[in-house]
Amino acid sequence: MTNSFCCPGFKAAGIHAGIKKNNAKDLGMIYTEHPAAAAAVFTRNQVVAAPVVVSKANIRDGTARAVIVNSGNANCCTGAGGRADAEKMTRLVAAQMDIAAHQVQVASTGVIGAPLPMDKVRAAVPDLTRKLDEQGFADLAEAIMTTDTVPKIARRRGELGGHPYTLLAVAKGAGMIRPDMATMLCFICTDLTATSAQLRQALTRAVDGSFNRITIDGDTSTNDTVLLMASGQSRAELNSATQAAFQPVLNDLLVELAKAMVRDGEGVTKLVEVVVRGAASDADAQVVADTIAHSPLVKTAFFGQDANWGRILAAAGRAGVALDAGRIDLFFNDVQMVAAGAGCGPEAEAAATKVLHTPEFTVTVELNAGPGRASMWTCDLSLDYVKINADYRT
Amino acid sequence: MTNSFCCPGFKAAGIHAGIKKNNAKDLGMIYTEHPAAAAAVFTRNQVVAAPVVVSKANIRDGTARAVIVNSGNANCCTGAGGRADAEKMTRLVAAQMDIAAHQVQVASTGVIGAPLPMDKVRAAVPDLTRKLDEQGFADLAEAIMTTDTVPKIARRRGELGGHPYTLLAVAKGAGMIRPDMATMLCFICTDLTATSAQLRQALTRAVDGSFNRITIDGDTSTNDTVLLMASGQSRAELNSATQAAFQPVLNDLLVELAKAMVRDGEGVTKLVEVVVRGAASDADAQVVADTIAHSPLVKTAFFGQDANWGRILAAAGRAGVALDAGRIDLFFNDVQMVAAGAGCGPEAEAAATKVLHTPEFTVTVELNAGPGRASMWTCDLSLDYVKINADYRT
Repeated sequence: MTNSFCCPGFKAAGIHAGIKKNNAKDLGMIYTEHPAAAAAVFTRNQVVAAPVVVSKANIRDGTARAVIVNSGNANCCTGAGGRADAEKMTRLVAAQMDIAAHQVQVASTGVIGAPLPMDKVRAAVPDLTRKLDEQGFADLAEAIMTTDTVPKIARRRGELGGHPYTLLAVAKGAGMIRPDMATMLCFICTDLTATSAQLRQALTRAVDGSFNRITIDGDTSTNDTVLLMASGQSRAELNSATQAAFQPVLNDLLVELAKAMVRDGEGVTKLVEVVVRGAASDADAQVVADTIAHSPLVKTAFFGQDANWGRILAAAGRAGVALDAGRIDLFFNDVQMVAAGAGCGPEAEAAATKVLHTPEFTVTVELNAGPGRASMWTCDLSLDYVKINADYRT
Repeated sequence: MTNSFCCPGFKAAGIHAGIKKNNAKDLGMIYTEHPAAAAAVFTRNQVVAAPVVVSKANIRDGTARAVIVNSGNANCCTGAGGRADAEKMTRLVAAQMDIAAHQVQVASTGVIGAPLPMDKVRAAVPDLTRKLDEQGFADLAEAIMTTDTVPKIARRRGELGGHPYTLLAVAKGAGMIRPDMATMLCFICTDLTATSAQLRQALTRAVDGSFNRITIDGDTSTNDTVLLMASGQSRAELNSATQAAFQPVLNDLLVELAKAMVRDGEGVTKLVEVVVRGAASDADAQVVADTIAHSPLVKTAFFGQDANWGRILAAAGRAGVALDAGRIDLFFNDVQMVAAGAGCGPEAEAAATKVLHTPEFTVTVELNAGPGRASMWTCDLSLDYVKINADYRT
């Protein structure tokens, strides 16, 4: 982590409060001197963690002054006590920073169903706020890790109307990841001048093209939160005229973090882009890509570095979309392995196997039935995934 | 296997033809002297193996005289040559037995995308037909195994209108198993007198309550076939008056085989029944049970013998069904672990962990929202599942 990970108007911190068993950082914070315009996307899981309930209520006015987040405990399925704990976390920050509790966003990630050790959080908040620093984002990125093996932090710089701006994001997520439900946690800070509605529109689009296009294991979290805050410190302004220039920058930032999550997925040894082309519609293509990307047999074959294209076709065939198996072509990167539904033979298989031995590659399924197109990033299903998740609570 | 595995009017055989690398049996057959009334259920995968296409056409008249089946090669995604090979298999049997080719059902199971070694099949058919025997079903059960570790054969005896009858079934299946698509292969013989339409009705109902309620990995085969043949050798007759007495016997037989498949699933160490009660409707309950039964995080927790109820609630919450997390109760066998959406504490957890250490148990999720109910049989996701499927073709 270099010192360049900062964003005008924001401070951050990350410390060890004692929620995790080891000495790893487990409590983090973001703070902005002036109320930031804010927008957020939350999990669509019907089992929702207490901090998500509190944060949803607190962001209704489109502003935020601070975020408090812990790892090691999800504060989910914790009943009325859990809800009270999430509210207490916002009040602890509010009291220290002399702001209103409803200006504080709260997030938790970790084991589901265990009460949050509030005594440790309460004792640590004064130290946490003392450590707030413009260069504290690297510590924050560490403080939100659970089974992640590397912190995830990324930055973009852009210009709108001749004025420079910064986008800085930290994220975590390595398991319980599936599209259509946002992702785990991601906090994005920018010094742009923007309204909450503008931020929300840009954020929703960017999430659809990034976190909603990755899968690790097909499970979805109860705690997913993606938050975008704009401090207004830059004269660069997000508006209808600049939206088109800004969107690709935000998209690109979130795609970088989304791919980083898959690459750091539990037990992952392969990052695979699944591209489906030639479907009757984009929606059809999406269903086929989603089914292939989630298939345990396809994912174990990736782990085995086996160009087992039959499993990919079998997954496509069960996606529930009308397709003609006799027209399907399939490629591993540029190597054509299937033509018109049948294998291309041992020479193609040898070339495809070489592709499978690389850490990142693309599988393209051409249905030859229309203009529809979709893509997903997925990963292999490895022995380590099972080990990590069989032993998670022990 | 005892000699009691026979059914009046039917002969069977199973031999090693050389399709599998080792000396294991890989070619099997069923034969009946007199045309049997027959009905079948096939995979709903849109990528369909050649033998399924041929068998579907051949069963249109509601009769069958013989079945030929091989393991070690699925004859799927093999183009026009694969279709020709499946037809050749029916003609080889027809020529040996002096019957019409359209009276022969054909099935294959094994690796997808490799051409069938027809020279070996052709050379072996005379020996196969020579070995046909009333007591040959145990050999047949072995000849259809792929990653199965034990042959699956079961029998029931019943009485209709004072006349005894027999039901005898062999099945295979240990991976690529998911409900709603029939299952892998199952051949059921009975000496009942019945029409094809009556068999079809009974078979469809029995499959819905058995093979359509199991999952191993959520993938579905391109080759699934369940075939029921009635030789009419018994005076017991299946008709509208006896249907009610017969259905539970067939159901029970197929449930035994369905559970045997999950128990013998790839790498499986736990057989788990997931029961969802109190949903708004049976359909809602089914969606929730299906989502829990397929969740990799739930399944790895079973493997880890970890009563990780939070993952079960999280899976329920992403099922896409409206539910109130604060009303959910959860039980491992009779041990209540969750009450009104929150954990019941360390004592309950200790008792639940004991349940998780047994090889077969039930998880009951009570939504307290209505009369809807559904159940599924699933299994754990183990290290061996990944090993088996990463190395399957090597």
